[in-house]
Amino acid sequence: MTQAPIKTEALVIGAGPVGLFQVFQLGLQGVHCHVVDALPHVGGQCAELYAGKPIYDIPGIPFCTGQDLVERLQQQMAPFKPTLHLGQQVTHIERQADQRLAITTDGGQHFLTSTLFIAAGVGAFVPRRMVLDGLSAFEGTQVFAEHPAPERWAGHHLVVAGDGDTALQTCLDAMTGPQAAASVTLLHRRDQFSAAPELTEQMRQACAQGRMRFVAGQPTGLKVEQGRLQALELLNPQGEAQWLSLDVLQTCLGLSPKLGPVAQWGLAMERKQLVVNTENFGTSEHGIFAVGDINTYPGKKKLILCGFHEATLAAFGALALLRPTEKTLLQYTTTSTLLHQRLGLV
Amino acid sequence: MTQAPIKTEALVIGAGPVGLFQVFQLGLQGVHCHVVDALPHVGGQCAELYAGKPIYDIPGIPFCTGQDLVERLQQQMAPFKPTLHLGQQVTHIERQADQRLAITTDGGQHFLTSTLFIAAGVGAFVPRRMVLDGLSAFEGTQVFAEHPAPERWAGHHLVVAGDGDTALQTCLDAMTGPQAAASVTLLHRRDQFSAAPELTEQMRQACAQGRMRFVAGQPTGLKVEQGRLQALELLNPQGEAQWLSLDVLQTCLGLSPKLGPVAQWGLAMERKQLVVNTENFGTSEHGIFAVGDINTYPGKKKLILCGFHEATLAAFGALALLRPTEKTLLQYTTTSTLLHQRLGLV
Repeated sequence: MTQAPIKTEALVIGAGPVGLFQVFQLGLQGVHCHVVDALPHVGGQCAELYAGKPIYDIPGIPFCTGQDLVERLQQQMAPFKPTLHLGQQVTHIERQADQRLAITTDGGQHFLTSTLFIAAGVGAFVPRRMVLDGLSAFEGTQVFAEHPAPERWAGHHLVVAGDGDTALQTCLDAMTGPQAAASVTLLHRRDQFSAAPELTEQMRQACAQGRMRFVAGQPTGLKVEQGRLQALELLNPQGEAQWLSLDVLQTCLGLSPKLGPVAQWGLAMERKQLVVNTENFGTSEHGIFAVGDINTYPGKKKLILCGFHEATLAAFGALALLRPTEKTLLQYTTTSTLLHQRLGLV
Repeated sequence: MTQAPIKTEALVIGAGPVGLFQVFQLGLQGVHCHVVDALPHVGGQCAELYAGKPIYDIPGIPFCTGQDLVERLQQQMAPFKPTLHLGQQVTHIERQADQRLAITTDGGQHFLTSTLFIAAGVGAFVPRRMVLDGLSAFEGTQVFAEHPAPERWAGHHLVVAGDGDTALQTCLDAMTGPQAAASVTLLHRRDQFSAAPELTEQMRQACAQGRMRFVAGQPTGLKVEQGRLQALELLNPQGEAQWLSLDVLQTCLGLSPKLGPVAQWGLAMERKQLVVNTENFGTSEHGIFAVGDINTYPGKKKLILCGFHEATLAAFGALALLRPTEKTLLQYTTTSTLLHQRLGLV
């Protein structure tokens, strides 16, 4: 069943810092927008890769963490109440006869938008897959990389691959409750984990109690019988091959950015970046702007503060398309009553 | 007597927010710089025109005042210890045979710099002059617009023109002490003042006590005898002409920006703005960059946040000139040990 498309003046792809500031600048221009991001939360790389790490070069902010910056930008854009569509990736963009863009996500959401802002950074953050010949054929039936869900393994023999918090927590969760697995095995190439020490300790205790087990090894092959994945072939740390049988494999290998369908949208690109002009950061396609790490132009530096500038000029560029008869005056947030109204201050 | 020139890799003209961030970005690149500003303090327009006024569009700072922003930027650039030359205006720029630029200020300071960053905003903030035919001939002898100084009027009949804090405070100060004026008259076109209420009250009391007087009127002419300014001709609020005799006129009419000598440096300009490229914000002259409100390019918006981006790319542009053999890698403040060293963090 297809949902009716959401009609909007502006759609932003990417809820990283530059996408969030794009929302703010469009809001100042009186343009409401929708935002799509592959991650289940806002913040993009800032939240995913360096939430707790320091940033020193945001102008006027001598020090903040990635997460601080995201929170500050959320607070700044809050007056403009964007509609967020998280955990979804844009898969298709199609130009309509009326020049609007029809956008589809893998979450089944449809949009009809007049302007599009691609603030997708290095791409959508998607779960990293286990690379093993033939494995992808079982994705969605016996092999899962997306966020763990107990209905996949209830009553079955489960192997969880990974060494981080998510992998270990999934093992611990899968041992109990009405949807418990028949058995739980944690698989990682060596007996050393990046998960929090408490979680690692809990996992080791559960192994000692025989409630789950840990197997060290590197997957090298599959055993498939009658169209069913029976076991993984492993190379263990002693250099020996061994078999690990399973019903369900849940991989928790972290996220990796994937440029994905952006590359297929027919926009002018150079070295995997979208080519833009520096007047309004428009791409080769009318009404499609690209801001932040995903674009390129002479002198481009992949810095957050540069993305803020790009998003600002892109908002002015969009306004010229959306309100062609209005004269776009530069107004200042310090003095403009109109901007104060839009910011909800008066 | 001419001072020996200061030799430097980089000189920044203008200590407004963009000039301060220019210092920061040059510092990240390992380039120390000198800064010249016409005002006696850093902050430029932010400090002069909207120190206490709100700004809502600095990315990641939902609200701050102009003064807040200046203080944040000062803190951010502090690790790079720029040398500040305040209260001075650059008057001459000359290309040397070795391609360096010889810079002279009206404070008698000389520089030899390899790169120059013009972050002069709308120009240098200089005292607004009283506009009256023939008056400028007496500037420096009987007429003064620069910061009030008692030695000018000690024992003389003083007229202070203005309605703000400085004008009223000057009147109050000039009535007492060893360098008191013979008489003090405040001149403003109407009996209404922009000075702080306490100051206005003090001035009114002094008038009531006969220690000074207030004259309402608009200067329309001069009386000059034997090369000496004798009196101002005024049009009073009743529409009548009257004479106001004086020895010394101190004008306190606030500051106004003046593009000044920038216009004479032979750089390509458009509508009083310096034309720059958007790759590194270089002007038509090799080694001279222009950032912030003073520059223009297609799409230019006079916003502080855009100036931050411009200063960043200009720093990279300068580095290519200063260290032509070094490969300029983009490093991140989050992860780069080199940048952490320069920031004084390790």
